[in-house]
Amino acid sequence: MTGRLIGLGVGPGDPELLTLKALRLLRAAPVIGYFVAKAKHHAGLGGNAFAIIEQHLLDEQQRLPLVYPVTTEKLEPPLTYEGVISDFYDTAAEQVAMHLNAGRDVAVICEGDPFFYGSYMYLHDRLSERYDTEVVPGVCSMLGSAAVLGVPLVYRNQSLSVLSGVLPEDELKRRLADADAAVVMKLGRNFDKVRRVLRELGRDGGAHYVERATMREQRIVALDDVDPMASPYFSMIVIPGQRWNG
Amino acid sequence: MTGRLIGLGVGPGDPELLTLKALRLLRAAPVIGYFVAKAKHHAGLGGNAFAIIEQHLLDEQQRLPLVYPVTTEKLEPPLTYEGVISDFYDTAAEQVAMHLNAGRDVAVICEGDPFFYGSYMYLHDRLSERYDTEVVPGVCSMLGSAAVLGVPLVYRNQSLSVLSGVLPEDELKRRLADADAAVVMKLGRNFDKVRRVLRELGRDGGAHYVERATMREQRIVALDDVDPMASPYFSMIVIPGQRWNG
Repeated sequence: MTGRLIGLGVGPGDPELLTLKALRLLRAAPVIGYFVAKAKHHAGLGGNAFAIIEQHLLDEQQRLPLVYPVTTEKLEPPLTYEGVISDFYDTAAEQVAMHLNAGRDVAVICEGDPFFYGSYMYLHDRLSERYDTEVVPGVCSMLGSAAVLGVPLVYRNQSLSVLSGVLPEDELKRRLADADAAVVMKLGRNFDKVRRVLRELGRDGGAHYVERATMREQRIVALDDVDPMASPYFSMIVIPGQRWNG
Repeated sequence: MTGRLIGLGVGPGDPELLTLKALRLLRAAPVIGYFVAKAKHHAGLGGNAFAIIEQHLLDEQQRLPLVYPVTTEKLEPPLTYEGVISDFYDTAAEQVAMHLNAGRDVAVICEGDPFFYGSYMYLHDRLSERYDTEVVPGVCSMLGSAAVLGVPLVYRNQSLSVLSGVLPEDELKRRLADADAAVVMKLGRNFDKVRRVLRELGRDGGAHYVERATMREQRIVALDDVDPMASPYFSMIVIPGQRWNG
């Protein structure tokens, strides 16, 4: 009997936004897998998702860190970010598979939701045909952000566009121009570009900005007051749909 | 001291997808508000969100049903659906305010997430300037659906379009043609139109259909096999982004 692969959404940051199901499966899993940046790992830390659930772990549960080999550093050709990351996911999948082959369930914890821009997806794609899987959906950061901002996101039959700040400026502009409501994720170094596009479209007035929503370090800042050099990756711009006065 | 208005996301259907925070605030609230269709209310039922959390309620917690006056029936002019619903939200807000004025907190439960197409939004817009509010985000049905379908939703920098099946056919087509990944909600009587558009765009092959995801009555059906006359409102089409093989 091989073990089961579990993609476990642990919510946007507040440990209380864990679901009852995630908590039950977390406690029952002999192995807890988590993605973590190299620098954090070497500092003895477990990453964002790990910090959310660490309080529930028992000593006898095995930790399986999946350590990213690169973050944002320049790579020497012929290395590419895509190539290095792809190889890393192959290796990570085999690290997980080793436990599954030995009959141990592995819960891979994911900030937010596993299938909403989560790294778990790359393990799922590599392993779901060979092993039983279960995915536990989580509260995504987008909805955590709307909640702490106190802004209803989409009314009635409005369309919602979820966009990455990494997109080229012209694509961002085109998609935002056509959006009833929108959320722009992955800001970080892309913040300035995104704000410029919103200003050009005249949509900056209705846009809200939040860093690390629902976490202890949460910060809500007016869009005009954000320092573009200091915006973290885990920040978000929320542009709610037009209020329906019905 | 007035009471606090709490918008409480209770997740997509599986009672275990309630968050720890929602459970704590639910148990602490003296009044539980919930939206419910007239027919269900008259049958002694409490609606979908109520069914998810009913097991946790104590006798002394007051139930506050907010009963929709109409669902899909034809109205005699000068009545319009929008007008009737708007008046209803005004009345519902005052029913809630009565408790808040008396110093009682009111938790309004919402299937999925309160700010993601939830009726709670209309209470929030009417009351948040007069009363303290707190919104507890929940697992939305979109992510519940992706989880049970086992399909990763959006990779890397893909854009996600969340659309209502109620949209006119040409707008649906335009938005779906431009979407990397998409979710179409509110199917029901709109199912046939949505499937036709997907076929025209050649995207039906990659589309997944699920009814009442994560609930006991959940059904996953191939898109071609769905009976358009029997598709419930709580069904969804999920079109995942192209798999990234990195």
